[in-house]
Amino acid sequence: MAAMVATGAAQRVVIVGGGFGGLRLAKVLADDPVEVTLVDRRNHHTFQPLLYQVATAMLDPAAIARSLRAIFRRQANVEVRLGHVTGVDWDVKQVLVAEGDPIPFDVLVLAAGAVTSDYGIEGVAEHAFPLKSPEEALRLRHHVLARFERAVADPVLIDSGELNFVVVGGGPTGVEMAGALVELIDNVVRKDFRSVDVDRAHVVLIEATDHLIDPFSPKSRQNALETLAARGVEVRLGTTVEAVTAAAVHLAGGDVVSTRTLVWTAGVRANPLADALALAQAEGRRIVVEPDLSVPGHPDCFVIGDLAASRGEDGTLDPQMAPLAQQGADHVAEQLRRRHRGLATERFSYKNKGVMATVGRNAAVAELPNGMRFRGRLAWVMWLVLHLQRLVGYRNRFEVLTAWGWNYLTSDRTARLMIGSDDEVTGPT
Amino acid sequence: MAAMVATGAAQRVVIVGGGFGGLRLAKVLADDPVEVTLVDRRNHHTFQPLLYQVATAMLDPAAIARSLRAIFRRQANVEVRLGHVTGVDWDVKQVLVAEGDPIPFDVLVLAAGAVTSDYGIEGVAEHAFPLKSPEEALRLRHHVLARFERAVADPVLIDSGELNFVVVGGGPTGVEMAGALVELIDNVVRKDFRSVDVDRAHVVLIEATDHLIDPFSPKSRQNALETLAARGVEVRLGTTVEAVTAAAVHLAGGDVVSTRTLVWTAGVRANPLADALALAQAEGRRIVVEPDLSVPGHPDCFVIGDLAASRGEDGTLDPQMAPLAQQGADHVAEQLRRRHRGLATERFSYKNKGVMATVGRNAAVAELPNGMRFRGRLAWVMWLVLHLQRLVGYRNRFEVLTAWGWNYLTSDRTARLMIGSDDEVTGPT
Repeated sequence: MAAMVATGAAQRVVIVGGGFGGLRLAKVLADDPVEVTLVDRRNHHTFQPLLYQVATAMLDPAAIARSLRAIFRRQANVEVRLGHVTGVDWDVKQVLVAEGDPIPFDVLVLAAGAVTSDYGIEGVAEHAFPLKSPEEALRLRHHVLARFERAVADPVLIDSGELNFVVVGGGPTGVEMAGALVELIDNVVRKDFRSVDVDRAHVVLIEATDHLIDPFSPKSRQNALETLAARGVEVRLGTTVEAVTAAAVHLAGGDVVSTRTLVWTAGVRANPLADALALAQAEGRRIVVEPDLSVPGHPDCFVIGDLAASRGEDGTLDPQMAPLAQQGADHVAEQLRRRHRGLATERFSYKNKGVMATVGRNAAVAELPNGMRFRGRLAWVMWLVLHLQRLVGYRNRFEVLTAWGWNYLTSDRTARLMIGSDDEVTGPT
Repeated sequence: MAAMVATGAAQRVVIVGGGFGGLRLAKVLADDPVEVTLVDRRNHHTFQPLLYQVATAMLDPAAIARSLRAIFRRQANVEVRLGHVTGVDWDVKQVLVAEGDPIPFDVLVLAAGAVTSDYGIEGVAEHAFPLKSPEEALRLRHHVLARFERAVADPVLIDSGELNFVVVGGGPTGVEMAGALVELIDNVVRKDFRSVDVDRAHVVLIEATDHLIDPFSPKSRQNALETLAARGVEVRLGTTVEAVTAAAVHLAGGDVVSTRTLVWTAGVRANPLADALALAQAEGRRIVVEPDLSVPGHPDCFVIGDLAASRGEDGTLDPQMAPLAQQGADHVAEQLRRRHRGLATERFSYKNKGVMATVGRNAAVAELPNGMRFRGRLAWVMWLVLHLQRLVGYRNRFEVLTAWGWNYLTSDRTARLMIGSDDEVTGPT
């Protein structure tokens, strides 16, 4: 490689995935002597932490998505390539895509993230609503609004659980989703659907362990639980799902909850690309990596973020969160520079920067690594500011800020539109 | 009916369609002693005149759509019902919907508008892109952006017309669409797709008559033609389409233009609901109406807007434009009041309030009925102001205004997202 640089040929770095990790890596390589190709099956970066607000009609998907070509318009050493990666030809060092020519690389960085996992539970894949993409968030929004439209047209349906909404998974996403659902119902649906007995709508949050929001301290967990309960969410801890049908969820122990709307936030697994590459995989199908995040036997291939089975000093897997991907990106950029200078690569070490989750209007919990804890309105304002900062691009920040401001002041949900789902109202899925 | 009112029972007015006509009618009946049910298959009103801006990544659909329930939240005498109207039972006076209970009426107002007409031309229904709904506009946007993504992955495709964009129909919509397409390509695509030879992209506007924008004077028509040509649109007048395939459009006379993107704005026909009702129909399948807009033989049923075959004094059909629907709404509201007072209904008379069309940035034409004509930047500003005024709701006005402002100042198109079309890039339709 030193020889290549000497002859003036820039190293070709191919990044698979335009999420938090891939985006960060392409950006931090701006001034390096490399040619970056960023491959994604979507033409935009999605700010996943706010997808639940798209699903609950607070935001429109465009507010939290930004065109990858727009992001890299002024960065000369990045090319964007839209395509579905189908595999890697390790011998000739090319990424294979379903569309058009393969993409040659000197260094390959896999940052394809995670997808929803149904853990093999019967009916989840067919009937549950995942929440990992703008399309899924829109589909869920349409479905929720359509339930109330159905209750207008056919009030008798309420008796069979048409207005029961079940969220499975008590992590931050499930808690945020359940909190946002009761707000949508209380603040918006109640005024919009005057002829429906909205008091009969019911939000249930199901969690298999004995607590919510696992990464938090017991005090914060308890605070989230009490806030949700006070706002009308029925929280069922220590409860596992045995099967899901179009009309109900069957719980361990025999309980059955009628519902046409089951939101599945119970877990993720590595992007199926991991399976296609015939590399060693760990728990959650994450790709096994060396301490420096390179792939065993493929020193020119790195894996970052949710896709990598990176581990702390004690051997536990790193948590699949945005900061992991971003720190992985910074680490890989640094290792490429070290190699360029002829130095050995270093060990990657994930640093916990703190956690936060919002339970709804004026209510959130936040914890810093130094032990500081925040809750209530202060934590909620911190959450708002941090999420605005992390959004990509001024335009998206402006859009999200004005939507939040408008909706906060008016208790409105401007995004309660069902666009792209002509047939949803016709009947339940 | 006078007896009914005397007994205190408010007259039940059912309006089918939440477009310009239905929306206006429900609003102007706010203080009348009636109970309105507004039925639509969508949960939102769409501001159709700006759909072409959704298709060309200038606006997002949420900016030009507003929830019907939000619009009527504070109007106590309007109920919204989401549903597909399948017919009318005239004997018991009920509107039949695909979902749930039928809707009884004392007065029925049909305002279901028009849909795209392919005039039976081969291949149009399968391969052309209509532009009458947010979904269609989004599909077209994705398809256009996907053509350039394909050109990145497979540059050889450009030779077979991948970057040829054909608009059929030289009315205001076709002119606006062609103008917006060249702007999208010149201002945005050129910067986004550095590896594509964007000079090879080509926009063709095809019109069967010998002039564009028919409702305008010859001077304005010529101005629109010259402006489009100067901006790079190839305008083909006196040209008719014989057939459309997935890869080309075949013109009368034998010319064939390779293209994967044919936008069809050549005409409309009445909503198929008109066919289902077994009422007399006129040209374009519009429902035959009495001079007062009631249906012959059904004095309690009125038809307004694009769906009605209303005619001027000279017997010519009224133009299918938003003002026709809005004036029809005002007229019907007035006739209901006259009947309530025991008076005979009056003749409807459409009043031309002027026409305007935009050709692109800083370029539009506008004509008032008094003969005043405007063009260029002044007409363009008039167009902007008028369209902002006509949008429903402050929030939509704010969204459109900020998007226009941002995109004007930055030559950006913030909405160049392909959301909801995972598979589009995989290949042409």
